[in-house]
Amino acid sequence: MTITVTGFASSPDRGRGLARDMRVRWALEEVGQPYESRLLTFAELRQPDALASQPFGQIPAFDDGAGLVLFESGAIVLHIAGTYPGLLPADRQARARAIAWMFAAVSTVEPVLVERETARLVEGDRDWTPARLPLIEQRIHTRLRQLADRLGDGEWLEGDFSAGDLMLAAVLFRSMGAGLVEEHANLAGYIARATARQAFQRAFAAQHAVYEASLRR
Amino acid sequence: MTITVTGFASSPDRGRGLARDMRVRWALEEVGQPYESRLLTFAELRQPDALASQPFGQIPAFDDGAGLVLFESGAIVLHIAGTYPGLLPADRQARARAIAWMFAAVSTVEPVLVERETARLVEGDRDWTPARLPLIEQRIHTRLRQLADRLGDGEWLEGDFSAGDLMLAAVLFRSMGAGLVEEHANLAGYIARATARQAFQRAFAAQHAVYEASLRR
Repeated sequence: MTITVTGFASSPDRGRGLARDMRVRWALEEVGQPYESRLLTFAELRQPDALASQPFGQIPAFDDGAGLVLFESGAIVLHIAGTYPGLLPADRQARARAIAWMFAAVSTVEPVLVERETARLVEGDRDWTPARLPLIEQRIHTRLRQLADRLGDGEWLEGDFSAGDLMLAAVLFRSMGAGLVEEHANLAGYIARATARQAFQRAFAAQHAVYEASLRR
Repeated sequence: MTITVTGFASSPDRGRGLARDMRVRWALEEVGQPYESRLLTFAELRQPDALASQPFGQIPAFDDGAGLVLFESGAIVLHIAGTYPGLLPADRQARARAIAWMFAAVSTVEPVLVERETARLVEGDRDWTPARLPLIEQRIHTRLRQLADRLGDGEWLEGDFSAGDLMLAAVLFRSMGAGLVEEHANLAGYIARATARQAFQRAFAAQHAVYEASLRR
């Protein structure tokens, strides 16, 4: 039984670890499970067999090699965390709270960050974009301030590192470099701690190797 | 042990069931669990005690009356579905797939629909909004077409009605009336089936009663 995770054959982020397969790779490294990656072009992602696994033509899709095919990075990471020890607390209440942070990462924090990416990448040539970006950044600022207030001087969100931290750090990591997350020293420290983990480093190296290989093709 | 769910004291949607407490009410009705609602004003949602339960100043927050406080509608519905029978299949693989649709609802489908709401409500007075709306609606159209292709002539997403259908139908229901979901007859039928469920009807009536009561204050 070999786990397979899909990713972009030609990484649009040039190997910077911003694509959503990164968080699945990271989770698998945290729990010590080997996996293979299946690299797909944008055209291949729109083909019927890829859409059967991932109905929105995105990555990642996950195949556990034993009949389970999943999509949605949050659901995949939750499945990994529920199958192998290390990413969710045993206590039922603590586990529910870690899962709440997984949902917060992908449905409350990530969408405001993606809105900025959409403005820059999809609407970058529209005359309104320069005037809109500060409005979007204000919305991001509000959300990140709430998050920074909650984290305070904690090392992780709720006690030990969990799948909730993994998802949130992966989401925030996508926006590093824009100066938004960096405004909050505790969030910057949180991401530094998360990305210093050996599992993150191994996952990062694996996806970066895909980019390096694509340059040689 | 009384379950408590927070909601808006003064419903901005005028009782149309669009706020995110609706999906939690619906889930509790599906599994037959009584609950009380705790209604908060926008000012109260920004107070420290509300932020302790919901760090982003939103609704819903959930208190199980036995020490567990949760936020994020997806996490709350997943907790309810994991605690009481009726919303998740017993088979482990089928359960993981239902959860994948819960994540898809809140992180892949809902954000593109919320983008339209943000344009209309937050940026409604900006000159660019009339020209931007068709671009946003094109993005919504693409996503809904993928969803409609996947649903096909199925009654529900994956066999029996599950928490995945509940979340997706609640998300799509928010956008009914704009003519976007309605373009796809199978999605419109899906929402009609979901909202015809007695549990949905009871949840809808309960949140609508809050709006009616607010008119009499």
